[in-house]
Amino acid sequence: MVGTISGEELAQKQKEISISEFFEKNKHLLGFDNPTKALLIVVKEAVDNSLDACCEAGILPRIKVSVKNISEDVFRVTVEDNGPGIPKQSIGRTFGKFLYGSKFHRLVQQRGQQGIGITGSVLYSQLTTSKPLKVWSKTNSGKTYFAKLTIDVIKNEPDILEDGYVTGRDEIKEHGTRISLDIVGRYRKTQSVDDYLMQTAISNPFAWIIYNAPDGRKIEYKRATDKLPKLPNEIKPHPYGVELGIFLRMLKTTKSKTILNFLTNEFSSVGSVTAKKACELTRIKLNAKPNLIENSLAAKLLKNLQSMNIQRPPLDCLSPIGEKELKKGLKKQYPNAEFIATETRPPEVYRGNPFEVEIGIVYDQSLPKNEPAKLMRFANRAPLLYQQSACSIFKSVVNTEWKRYGLEHRKGSMPIGQCVIVVHICSVWVPFVSEGKEAIASYPIIIKEIKLGLQQCARKLSLYIAGKRREYQQQRRMEMFQRYASEIEESLSKLTGRPVSEIKSEFEKLINSRTKIRKVEKEDGSDE
Amino acid sequence: MVGTISGEELAQKQKEISISEFFEKNKHLLGFDNPTKALLIVVKEAVDNSLDACCEAGILPRIKVSVKNISEDVFRVTVEDNGPGIPKQSIGRTFGKFLYGSKFHRLVQQRGQQGIGITGSVLYSQLTTSKPLKVWSKTNSGKTYFAKLTIDVIKNEPDILEDGYVTGRDEIKEHGTRISLDIVGRYRKTQSVDDYLMQTAISNPFAWIIYNAPDGRKIEYKRATDKLPKLPNEIKPHPYGVELGIFLRMLKTTKSKTILNFLTNEFSSVGSVTAKKACELTRIKLNAKPNLIENSLAAKLLKNLQSMNIQRPPLDCLSPIGEKELKKGLKKQYPNAEFIATETRPPEVYRGNPFEVEIGIVYDQSLPKNEPAKLMRFANRAPLLYQQSACSIFKSVVNTEWKRYGLEHRKGSMPIGQCVIVVHICSVWVPFVSEGKEAIASYPIIIKEIKLGLQQCARKLSLYIAGKRREYQQQRRMEMFQRYASEIEESLSKLTGRPVSEIKSEFEKLINSRTKIRKVEKEDGSDE
Repeated sequence: MVGTISGEELAQKQKEISISEFFEKNKHLLGFDNPTKALLIVVKEAVDNSLDACCEAGILPRIKVSVKNISEDVFRVTVEDNGPGIPKQSIGRTFGKFLYGSKFHRLVQQRGQQGIGITGSVLYSQLTTSKPLKVWSKTNSGKTYFAKLTIDVIKNEPDILEDGYVTGRDEIKEHGTRISLDIVGRYRKTQSVDDYLMQTAISNPFAWIIYNAPDGRKIEYKRATDKLPKLPNEIKPHPYGVELGIFLRMLKTTKSKTILNFLTNEFSSVGSVTAKKACELTRIKLNAKPNLIENSLAAKLLKNLQSMNIQRPPLDCLSPIGEKELKKGLKKQYPNAEFIATETRPPEVYRGNPFEVEIGIVYDQSLPKNEPAKLMRFANRAPLLYQQSACSIFKSVVNTEWKRYGLEHRKGSMPIGQCVIVVHICSVWVPFVSEGKEAIASYPIIIKEIKLGLQQCARKLSLYIAGKRREYQQQRRMEMFQRYASEIEESLSKLTGRPVSEIKSEFEKLINSRTKIRKVEKEDGSDE
Repeated sequence: MVGTISGEELAQKQKEISISEFFEKNKHLLGFDNPTKALLIVVKEAVDNSLDACCEAGILPRIKVSVKNISEDVFRVTVEDNGPGIPKQSIGRTFGKFLYGSKFHRLVQQRGQQGIGITGSVLYSQLTTSKPLKVWSKTNSGKTYFAKLTIDVIKNEPDILEDGYVTGRDEIKEHGTRISLDIVGRYRKTQSVDDYLMQTAISNPFAWIIYNAPDGRKIEYKRATDKLPKLPNEIKPHPYGVELGIFLRMLKTTKSKTILNFLTNEFSSVGSVTAKKACELTRIKLNAKPNLIENSLAAKLLKNLQSMNIQRPPLDCLSPIGEKELKKGLKKQYPNAEFIATETRPPEVYRGNPFEVEIGIVYDQSLPKNEPAKLMRFANRAPLLYQQSACSIFKSVVNTEWKRYGLEHRKGSMPIGQCVIVVHICSVWVPFVSEGKEAIASYPIIIKEIKLGLQQCARKLSLYIAGKRREYQQQRRMEMFQRYASEIEESLSKLTGRPVSEIKSEFEKLINSRTKIRKVEKEDGSDE
């Protein structure tokens, strides 16, 4: 025998692991796998939270982001918003406890989903610099509250080191939240904070973002619109997306007294006709008590429900950017663009969850030539900057037949051209492939919707490109014509006996009229 | 204003989320994203646990796996081992509580790491079929204990529905554990349970595995060796791999009375010379109390330690398969192989964690021609079947210059040839890219080690292939020679005046001697 450990001894080594410890050891799961990415994630989680809070409270967001290099590899990230603020008693757990939040148990389109993001940043900060989070917050009702806190990793609870009210320089004007974190990071200009904020401005054209970069630059993204997006509605789960285990738990914990009420009250799109039919099929009485229904019978009931033709969930729970707003955002970012097309697809449903796809294509001759088009990916208005090749957006783009639409393209890679391709997916539950929220899982219906949207936009682009090509060819023909004009004029003059000057002026009229035709053609083909 | 929610109202919606709820909603993070993969994962987690338990207890494993299709899309997975068994009082939490286990807090090479795997399978089972886990277990000291349990998802605690002792048919003979789970799954022959068990037999040649497949086949993998691998040692963390946050917590919770003792007792490779030097550099007294050292000073101490030249951690904590054992395992699986080379690299260290790479290459002309070589990936002896392209093993293989070694190859894809390429990484902490444990993160030192190992093996392969090619060319030349032999014989007979028969026999001698030379060459080139 090599080892001599008994089952009892093995069991004694077993121990509970807190979720904080888990993420501390597995910080790469939250995206903290290198200092460059870490800096981006800390900014992103803070800004996403600010935008969510402002939108939910109906406040036009004004967000100040500052990233300072305070020593060698240490950066101080400060993010301040004009949101509703966080009440004193909630601050600790909001920032210092994993798996705590308002978003997990609701089906509603938001940037945050799981109650992990910002706590992950606080954890990373204390892991790398051991400095506490500083947070200032002011709600409508009060003064500016200030706290310093860390996470007690073993307990997964916040540890408030210092708190109180502040006045003077640090005070928050109306209402809002300011946080400040010191982290080990690395700053670079591309695929990091700068790109993230620029793209955030595109997908949130109602947000005013002021950014102080580590190199001293101050960049301001002003609002492209003063209209806040429609507040997305919360919805109930749809029977198609509910798993048996969850259905059984709902039956046990419901407040509904009868199965009929349970089905019609707690699900999307289940009316009393559907509910009655499902119960009859399963031979359950309509007034049966939900918590007394046996598991095997409940399983049949769910199966019957799922095999019935039930309406899709209500789709007003989604809040897309909108074709016009997206175009405005892109125009602000690409003022030299010759052509911009945007497209909002009708909502669709994956596993009972509504989602919607939006596409934008920018054609801009000031972009570098003969290079792959730039791809911008967004999920619930938040830019995705990493794990591109694992993302269903990327897969859909590289598998679209771009050659058909006038772009150079080899299947499996990005098309070549002076283009920016924008894809936005909004959903009550975006299926990310990891907690890092960097890539979207490849559900066939999601891929299909993205492709359809891309094709619609690409068709407009191809018309534009074809128009440009036609224009170019006409130009060439005209130049050719003009080159031989004097000879032709002379010959015509000899043949007709009319003076050369007269023929010349006829010629010029002809050329001018052709140019006009071209102009008209161009205006028709454009996408305004 | 679009919405009218105040900070207070927002805060009231906040709620705690249990880790079980989290994984229930995010089951794709555990790999449960489709029924085929789900079936594999349930088998894998159970078998990995059985192998870990047997090895730790010094028992030669005998594992019975049965997968039965009990209705439409429901499969019953039963796995029984002859391990040390699990004591009654530990059974609930082992199977019914996430983030609970013996492996998380120790740095030791094992298949399981986090206390998530098997609980994920129980969760998936209750989510899809609502059937409880059935578990039977017998330790050295007792009778066969039986329990039926589910997970209370809201509390993240086991819920034992029924338990007691059993006799008769269900009894476990000596000692061991048997579990049975009903899940929604899909069975297919490739890249699933069959492949997983075949590969497990290769990387665990000391295990005896009996498999009853859903289609009625019974497959038995007998032991290729009766020698259990050396039991890997547990090690302490190495200063290079410790982050500041964790270092501070260690200082606060240590039982050591002085900083000198703390450094020398709680870390790998820190002797008193190193510890003293680090303290002097930081201006900390050697007898300072660890829990009284200020954070900023502690930060300096760690930085100083990390900038010093400290020995690598002890490497006897690793338990590779071994060149001979790996070759035995491969020979059993590929009895027609003409050539097998294996290689165990010396241990290396990433971020303070020791790891070791092993490579095997099989050349077998019974494998299909003109197809990409087959890649088998292993981490701590467990086969990895999914997410190949995200894995540093795959990246290393496709970026090796296989053309140099005689295989057809386009960079970025697998080489073409009748080969199987095997890569095994063992470590006290395998850096997986997700909890699904499907792919290994791309640390440069890990990629480098895999490449070096591949090159070493590939060099042997190329000698073999070159030998075969030479042999083939000589054969061709000889055939050419023989084709014209009769004419040459006649001409020689005329020239020399000796009879044709005499010349013929000389010729035959010559041909035979050349064949002998070839045979000797071949034996030299082989890898025995």
